[in-house]
Amino acid sequence: MKQEKGFRKKGLTKKSENMADWYNNVVVLADLADYSEVKGSMIIKANGYALWEKVQATLDQKFKEDDIKNYYFPLMIPYYLLKKEKEHLEGFSPELAVVTHAGGEKLSEPYVLRPTSETIMYKTFADWIHSYRDLPLKINQWCNIIRWEKRTYPFLRTTEFLWQEGHTVHQTEAEAVSMALKALKWYEDFYKEHFAISPYIGIKSDQEKFAGAKTTYSIELVIPNGKALQAATSHNLGDNFSKVFNITFLDNRGEKCHPWQTSWGLSTRSIGGLVLIHGDDSGLILPPKVADPQLVILVIPSKQEGKFDKTEKYSQKIYEKLVAKGLRVKIDREFKYSLGYRINEWEIKGVPLRLEIGNEEVSQKKIRFVRRDNFEQGLISINNLKEIDDLLVKIQKDMLSKSDKIKRDMTKEVNEYKEFKEMVRGQKMFLRAFWCGRKECEEKIKQETKLSTRVLELKEINKQQKGKCIYCGQQAKHRWLFAQSY
Amino acid sequence: MKQEKGFRKKGLTKKSENMADWYNNVVVLADLADYSEVKGSMIIKANGYALWEKVQATLDQKFKEDDIKNYYFPLMIPYYLLKKEKEHLEGFSPELAVVTHAGGEKLSEPYVLRPTSETIMYKTFADWIHSYRDLPLKINQWCNIIRWEKRTYPFLRTTEFLWQEGHTVHQTEAEAVSMALKALKWYEDFYKEHFAISPYIGIKSDQEKFAGAKTTYSIELVIPNGKALQAATSHNLGDNFSKVFNITFLDNRGEKCHPWQTSWGLSTRSIGGLVLIHGDDSGLILPPKVADPQLVILVIPSKQEGKFDKTEKYSQKIYEKLVAKGLRVKIDREFKYSLGYRINEWEIKGVPLRLEIGNEEVSQKKIRFVRRDNFEQGLISINNLKEIDDLLVKIQKDMLSKSDKIKRDMTKEVNEYKEFKEMVRGQKMFLRAFWCGRKECEEKIKQETKLSTRVLELKEINKQQKGKCIYCGQQAKHRWLFAQSY
Repeated sequence: MKQEKGFRKKGLTKKSENMADWYNNVVVLADLADYSEVKGSMIIKANGYALWEKVQATLDQKFKEDDIKNYYFPLMIPYYLLKKEKEHLEGFSPELAVVTHAGGEKLSEPYVLRPTSETIMYKTFADWIHSYRDLPLKINQWCNIIRWEKRTYPFLRTTEFLWQEGHTVHQTEAEAVSMALKALKWYEDFYKEHFAISPYIGIKSDQEKFAGAKTTYSIELVIPNGKALQAATSHNLGDNFSKVFNITFLDNRGEKCHPWQTSWGLSTRSIGGLVLIHGDDSGLILPPKVADPQLVILVIPSKQEGKFDKTEKYSQKIYEKLVAKGLRVKIDREFKYSLGYRINEWEIKGVPLRLEIGNEEVSQKKIRFVRRDNFEQGLISINNLKEIDDLLVKIQKDMLSKSDKIKRDMTKEVNEYKEFKEMVRGQKMFLRAFWCGRKECEEKIKQETKLSTRVLELKEINKQQKGKCIYCGQQAKHRWLFAQSY
Repeated sequence: MKQEKGFRKKGLTKKSENMADWYNNVVVLADLADYSEVKGSMIIKANGYALWEKVQATLDQKFKEDDIKNYYFPLMIPYYLLKKEKEHLEGFSPELAVVTHAGGEKLSEPYVLRPTSETIMYKTFADWIHSYRDLPLKINQWCNIIRWEKRTYPFLRTTEFLWQEGHTVHQTEAEAVSMALKALKWYEDFYKEHFAISPYIGIKSDQEKFAGAKTTYSIELVIPNGKALQAATSHNLGDNFSKVFNITFLDNRGEKCHPWQTSWGLSTRSIGGLVLIHGDDSGLILPPKVADPQLVILVIPSKQEGKFDKTEKYSQKIYEKLVAKGLRVKIDREFKYSLGYRINEWEIKGVPLRLEIGNEEVSQKKIRFVRRDNFEQGLISINNLKEIDDLLVKIQKDMLSKSDKIKRDMTKEVNEYKEFKEMVRGQKMFLRAFWCGRKECEEKIKQETKLSTRVLELKEINKQQKGKCIYCGQQAKHRWLFAQSY
């Protein structure tokens, strides 16, 4: 079926030649997603949703261990609620979808589909919170989000996406900051340990932060084309929303106070980052921790029929042993297709490890393996299947190292605006440069180079240096990371 | 907080006195759900969502074992797609919410929020299915659904709810029927084994079936007030949609055919059924299999301080042993509240088993237990903690038996329309009566008694009898179940 139209017939564009085309191709060919009748929306297919389930299982466990409870709030937010926080409204207005009719009637007050749930949740928090005993309140929600987008890409930017949004309320700012940083750490760990991606972690500039937040912390991924992908955010909301929504509590001295709040989210966009960072000209490459299957056994037919029986039995035995070890394994006996076609299919889908078993392997009591990440091949003795576990661990580790190397290679420290502008003309990169912190310089840089501030890295915040703003030359304390947003 | 307003102050209405009020009270007091700013929508709170997660975990595993894959399709359905299937459109039109504006502009074609996903999915199935090799296609989706409702009750009928919807495509009708029945069996097993509810299982009449289905199979719960709650459905869609959406496949003789389809769903309404069937005047009663916690240890303070240290240590030790056994346990040391208040709170929340530990229990090396379902009390030796597992198993079993007894007690066989009408005036009931199958009789009965056909039980379908229609007296082959819908 796949071969029937357009690129499906031509096969995969090379990542090295046109990353945007390659991305759109691989998402469809690997059965991660498909286009839909709904402009700007996608269908998440089985392989894409399975990755999202891995994200869910991992993060949900972290949340539960931290006593964060799952709730579910309405999709439709009365428009008057969204209007309460001015910055928030301004930030989201261009992206709203509006329900004006329902049940056969025109609604007296329209509803917007949630672009995020602060307003609908916090209105209710005001009813739930009265005393310091009610704090902290820590909730999470897994749901769909609607943000109307003009230019869309599967996973990376779609009109509808799936995410989790955590929302917490605390007595003190210190607690709120600590919670926002804890969520950030969960995201960082998730990207490193599960997606094998080494991200930048830091705070956003005032221009780039979440509409209504005091501080936004962000996870930024370095895409191999030098662009930046914002891949999760965590906000210290201050007492901004609690004042607007009149959330108050009596502290232990009986005084009425506004609590401090946080919100933090990670979405299906993460899957887009995974594809972009690890994939190659042959398709997707999945880290073993999230891949399903983690390995595929390719049974290779022989022309001598008797011998082939033996190969099949041998393969089946190995398959059963690997399943018994708790590995996620598929066995491929699709003999109606050519061996080349079968290999191609598993490579496009990014299965981390391929085992090939034919006559030769059977007679040698071996298994041939091929790593998806670097095509390294070798033979494993069937008496030493533990090597397969080791290989999977090694692939996971090597993928993270590779992502870390991309991050370092694609980042350059620059001290002169001339150099900064020159860099932009060639290979796109993350540029580390002093910035004075003034909105004017940030805007001019963006206008002239398309590069925006991504983050001030957490590890740089307390490292006060003396430098000159790359744009205006005035005093600057920190080097910020600049890059073009994906 | 709870005591501050309305019924929260007065406490729980008695179930026996006013089930509707009791239900609305208990849902809020047990922290299952709360009312929201959005008319007809609710907020699912932690305890309610935890129950939904149990539903999800159990059913999702069944689906995966049957090689059904999770997908995610768009929330917004272009209106022209919904219009394609006439019966389907007519069925859902009164309940639609419509998005007319997005991204600051009026849309040229409005979107409806999915009231169910047949149309958006099947449009795409036509692109995915070409040959018999592409069949069966078996997918599932966990998502939110919007159906505009005039009269709403938390969980039972809300403008937005959560559900799973399975959709499958098959070569033959036999396969489709077998799939629809398999899904029905999953639902039946779920209700029996996990929710401890004994349902009626059968087919719907043509009037009551799903808009666009050939046959609708349904799970009907008997609520203790004699009303019926439709608690899950499974549809043989025939080739109805596949014709409308032009889904075709080449069979193994190379002939172009329309495939047969099924869809089936279970929603958060199930939680409403659980509350209504098992709850009592003291609040919720949860079956041990889905309760979290399954048991609570109530540490009872003593006035003699030295002795109390001992009680706390003793309780903690038992707590740890029970956790180590894999039970879901909470320990309650909220000494600032009275013992009565603490007991009350756990009873409202429906925790299946309460353990009480005070001075006396410590000195006797015993634990006092109180069953939530029947208030039976007793003592367990600390050397025989296995009794606790046995008690939980027994509670689960007894709750199912009780539900089965309610079902039998609330069902009556009637042979005369006079008796049928008399029954309706008193205690509402499920009535088992011959019906000729004609729409006219069904409608008249509903107009005159409010009772609609619920199902023809599966076990009755092949048991052809000779009877006379309760309404018109003409020949009838089956006794149907009639009841008033919740």
